[in-house]
Amino acid sequence: MADYTKTKRTTLKRAHERGSYDHDKVHAILDEALICHVGFIHDGGPAVIPTAHWREGETLYIHGSSASRMIRALEDGAPACIEVTMTDGLVLARSGYHSSVNYRTVVIYGSGRKIDDEAKKLATLKTFMEKIAPGRWDELRAPNDQEMKATTVLAFDLVELSAKIRDGGVEDEPEDMNDPVWAGVVPVRRTFGVPEPDPQMRADIGLPGYLKNYTGPG
Amino acid sequence: MADYTKTKRTTLKRAHERGSYDHDKVHAILDEALICHVGFIHDGGPAVIPTAHWREGETLYIHGSSASRMIRALEDGAPACIEVTMTDGLVLARSGYHSSVNYRTVVIYGSGRKIDDEAKKLATLKTFMEKIAPGRWDELRAPNDQEMKATTVLAFDLVELSAKIRDGGVEDEPEDMNDPVWAGVVPVRRTFGVPEPDPQMRADIGLPGYLKNYTGPG
Repeated sequence: MADYTKTKRTTLKRAHERGSYDHDKVHAILDEALICHVGFIHDGGPAVIPTAHWREGETLYIHGSSASRMIRALEDGAPACIEVTMTDGLVLARSGYHSSVNYRTVVIYGSGRKIDDEAKKLATLKTFMEKIAPGRWDELRAPNDQEMKATTVLAFDLVELSAKIRDGGVEDEPEDMNDPVWAGVVPVRRTFGVPEPDPQMRADIGLPGYLKNYTGPG
Repeated sequence: MADYTKTKRTTLKRAHERGSYDHDKVHAILDEALICHVGFIHDGGPAVIPTAHWREGETLYIHGSSASRMIRALEDGAPACIEVTMTDGLVLARSGYHSSVNYRTVVIYGSGRKIDDEAKKLATLKTFMEKIAPGRWDELRAPNDQEMKATTVLAFDLVELSAKIRDGGVEDEPEDMNDPVWAGVVPVRRTFGVPEPDPQMRADIGLPGYLKNYTGPG
């Protein structure tokens, strides 16, 4: 598949070598991240709200309370910028200037489309749950009408976007290489702890397979 | 100290009990997080860029290449929204509707102020390094004039902001409590791996104290 098409605002101005418009690379970052950061204009000024997201093919989805400020601002198609970042490492170079962070980020521009079709909405909410806990959706009762009404799902087409990735080690000035200071990378990881059951849970319920050795989406 | 003063846009419209305007709570979230998400208006539309941040008292700092789009957009005082989020858990309730995420977030509104005073700029860059690796700044050579010129530091006063925190366990409907499904919280943690030294590092340099059993800022 051809890369995503660059536009003026998705063309990296600096550190071009870190940019990517590759579908697989973009998808992998979106699929691993739990949270995105949604930028929109509210009362004439910028606003950023974190929320969970999920992906189906070339569409990114977010959801929220139908009463939320962000949903109200975006459900009629106002422009948005959605950013996703995974932090992978602290790059401790031999100078402050070259010290950096290893990260993978995707920045998406576009407008949301409210999912009104009930069957489609239900199906994509299942996709969301499958991202977090594969198989769990079918264990849960179905959402009721009131819950569906209280939840708005917005779809954003993956069309105008870029990924930016910084990985690898330190990149120091040649004249700093012999400086008497430790240099390298401290890996940063997202990890998951032992699942903590609700104290009120029925005693006959064990840990489901999808939570054994859980490593999260992606 | 009195709480931060609520404004229209920092007053939570929903889930009021999750809101906080407490200085210590806000500071703790900002100090633990490595990355913030900076929202601004670019070419008439919303843009969000991730970047590292640090704090001194009631001021949040970010920095970047003097040539970067974000710095250029913000250095003259254009309005910004800076959001910081730590993800703490996956809340797997007995229904999709009540499933949630445990998180701590801060949303700050304000305008940046470029730090032109060289001594102040150098001092706050040290604060940044101290956040990541206490004691390291004094091990590094000082930044040179060219590096200082290429780096812009912006300060944002912590005045108009709110924190929002979701913690604790599942909150299910009474009629769902006996459903035959596992319910509880999967903790999400930021962890740090074993530091990976630069292969080109001098052989006589050991791991510095600040990287032993490193747990990151905050």
